[in-house]
Amino acid sequence: MSATLAADEALARRRAAGERVLSMASGEIGLPVLPALADRLAAAATENAYGSVPGSPALRTAVAGYWERRGMPVDPDLVVAGPGSKSLLFAVLLAIGGDVIVPVPSWVSYAAQARLVGARPIPVPIRPGQGGVPDPTRLREAVADARASGRRPRAVIVTVPDNPTGTIASEATVRELAATARELDLIVVSDEIYGDLVYDGSAPAVSPALHAPERTVVTTGLTKNLAVGGWRTGVARLPDGEPGRALHTRLVAVASQIWSSPPAPVQAAAAYAFGEPPEVVERVAASRRLHETVVRAVAARFTAVGAKLHPVAATCYLYPDFEPLRDHLADAHGVHDGDALAALFSERYGIGVLPASAFGEPGRPLRIRAATSHFYGETAERRTAALEAADPPALPWIRESVDRVGEALADLTGRADLAGLAGPADLTGAQVPSALAPHP
Amino acid sequence: MSATLAADEALARRRAAGERVLSMASGEIGLPVLPALADRLAAAATENAYGSVPGSPALRTAVAGYWERRGMPVDPDLVVAGPGSKSLLFAVLLAIGGDVIVPVPSWVSYAAQARLVGARPIPVPIRPGQGGVPDPTRLREAVADARASGRRPRAVIVTVPDNPTGTIASEATVRELAATARELDLIVVSDEIYGDLVYDGSAPAVSPALHAPERTVVTTGLTKNLAVGGWRTGVARLPDGEPGRALHTRLVAVASQIWSSPPAPVQAAAAYAFGEPPEVVERVAASRRLHETVVRAVAARFTAVGAKLHPVAATCYLYPDFEPLRDHLADAHGVHDGDALAALFSERYGIGVLPASAFGEPGRPLRIRAATSHFYGETAERRTAALEAADPPALPWIRESVDRVGEALADLTGRADLAGLAGPADLTGAQVPSALAPHP
Repeated sequence: MSATLAADEALARRRAAGERVLSMASGEIGLPVLPALADRLAAAATENAYGSVPGSPALRTAVAGYWERRGMPVDPDLVVAGPGSKSLLFAVLLAIGGDVIVPVPSWVSYAAQARLVGARPIPVPIRPGQGGVPDPTRLREAVADARASGRRPRAVIVTVPDNPTGTIASEATVRELAATARELDLIVVSDEIYGDLVYDGSAPAVSPALHAPERTVVTTGLTKNLAVGGWRTGVARLPDGEPGRALHTRLVAVASQIWSSPPAPVQAAAAYAFGEPPEVVERVAASRRLHETVVRAVAARFTAVGAKLHPVAATCYLYPDFEPLRDHLADAHGVHDGDALAALFSERYGIGVLPASAFGEPGRPLRIRAATSHFYGETAERRTAALEAADPPALPWIRESVDRVGEALADLTGRADLAGLAGPADLTGAQVPSALAPHP
Repeated sequence: MSATLAADEALARRRAAGERVLSMASGEIGLPVLPALADRLAAAATENAYGSVPGSPALRTAVAGYWERRGMPVDPDLVVAGPGSKSLLFAVLLAIGGDVIVPVPSWVSYAAQARLVGARPIPVPIRPGQGGVPDPTRLREAVADARASGRRPRAVIVTVPDNPTGTIASEATVRELAATARELDLIVVSDEIYGDLVYDGSAPAVSPALHAPERTVVTTGLTKNLAVGGWRTGVARLPDGEPGRALHTRLVAVASQIWSSPPAPVQAAAAYAFGEPPEVVERVAASRRLHETVVRAVAARFTAVGAKLHPVAATCYLYPDFEPLRDHLADAHGVHDGDALAALFSERYGIGVLPASAFGEPGRPLRIRAATSHFYGETAERRTAALEAADPPALPWIRESVDRVGEALADLTGRADLAGLAGPADLTGAQVPSALAPHP
């Protein structure tokens, strides 16, 4: 079971039972649908034909335009749409065959999907701060070892920008990964679902498709930039050239046997979104600003208590490392690893986070992933207000969540004096606030 | 690549190129969305959360009611919704593991899906007229052989009512299949997507879930009864008891890694549909009547020229056998098998049908599957008129398609004298009509 989806469901049950829980487990984007986008879906409600397996020509043409505007033109016939980029990643792995190199840490589903298709995931650590890209040097060693022992690695997955670390691998790292993949004859599967959520517009994430165009499959979707995860819509960009076209043929065959075609009404709305009219561009920009301000506010709470954190450059994720606090966590809470740390967040503070182990990290790292995308409000009104606010962390409901994280961290680390520091809100008075009481 | 989807796309290309083609290849239902159903989808266009992996409680409760009204009550917690029953069948096979017995003939995707999940399909013929259910006697032999050779058959797929034959296995056959599955410790995967399209309401298809409730997974959807194939919505009913609940857990885990959850707006509409308010019941009844009248008109054309056809009792499919015409087909057209026969229909008459080989039939049977579900008109207005007509085959555009089949069959069999017989329309005059001219 997907760890993020399982965590979300567990938190939803607790909330339904009356508990005051704060979800930082899944990266589901808690924002409303852009009204113009919902209108497009509603207008397409009478569309009921299967249509083309890889998606309608209108959708594939719009997606090709989306990539062309990012310096990655593509023949619309090499675009494949599916019910979510997750589904496409699964089908791509099935169509490629062979074992799969996954970065460590990386999104919960890559390794699980590899196992489901009968492949073995081969974990390769990232370089510090270069989230989502297996260290090319260690990639070379791991593939040599795997091949020496009779395994058949055929693909390497990368995530730019990265989940869970919120970092973006540098162009140098991506270029080196691309060259190594070519040297090792690996297909690069580049998950770029966070591509539009890079905070600094002058420093976009670099796709391996620019450096190894003949062997890179790119996937993205509307789940993260337009908050329509529940619509299930993703797209893949296949490489040109004979091997890429052969892979396209296999991918479409797999798609035809698993899901037939993406939901037709959603395709119509997605074609509009990938066309990026001004209102869509504005909404994505507003979401990006919102994520950035809230992530920065929360990041400050983690660093204030001494957790280490690579600067978050994209997404709505923080991946703090409590290693500097290892002794205190052991002494005060009997916590020796990320799993126990995540359990403590959940049980003592009612805050759902995921441990490093969910992202494939071995050993006993004191790392967790915390997503801020559920902070924007429980109602459409609040969420819209969050999108429109000049200073979102100053909104009372967002401030409350950020403060709650700060208070939990202060209690956790025995630094109650720091609870209110480095955030937009100050805690006055020396009393431990009620939110610090152990969670029922 | 799915043979039905591939055939549809090929025909669509020919039509776009200006050819006059008649699609009888795929069973996509050429009918409009019930307006009230489209309204529900449109009203749910702002729903963008993933929600629960197996589908919303509202949807699962509605689906449980649907099955309860058919004498098959189920705990809503054992209902799993997905993006199409095709997706669910794939995930069920993956969750079960092991090899899979498939009936011969059977729907194009079962064997393909089994191969995709790394299993081997084990073909077992049906008994004559008992479409969709592997002959229990031969099933026992096949499983014994497979186990003796080290294979691990774990599931048997049945289709009631059946695609491609349009027949419904008798209760005796289903009961015997269920008993044999229990004896052999096989899980029964019962595809009941045509369950609402049984012409005779007093003789519904019998589900193996009634005879082997502890080991039968049932799947269905809204694709066939409400013509929303392009919406991608299916549901599965898992068996109660410990093994069934364990399978449910595995199925939900697989679903969480492949598609996360069914599209949220579609779930809202599906919950309404599975609740079966009067207008939905009426629409399904009208569709059923339409299918029946058109299938009967077309069936008469096939039998008039001497093809054999088991009485069609459900669906919109005919599976005629041209064996009695083997000598003529060989002499006049050089046709010796179903593939050549289907090619002749396509090339000479512009009529798309599928050969028996697409349904896993070995050897050189002169059988094809012909679907009538594209006959209802090219526009929403005509399709609605077809639904509302007292005598649909008398509508000019349906009559034209039925006549075209009759004329093709007359030419094919050298029985031009029979072209107009047994149908609602008469061909007067001895001249070969223009539709008989070889197709460009």
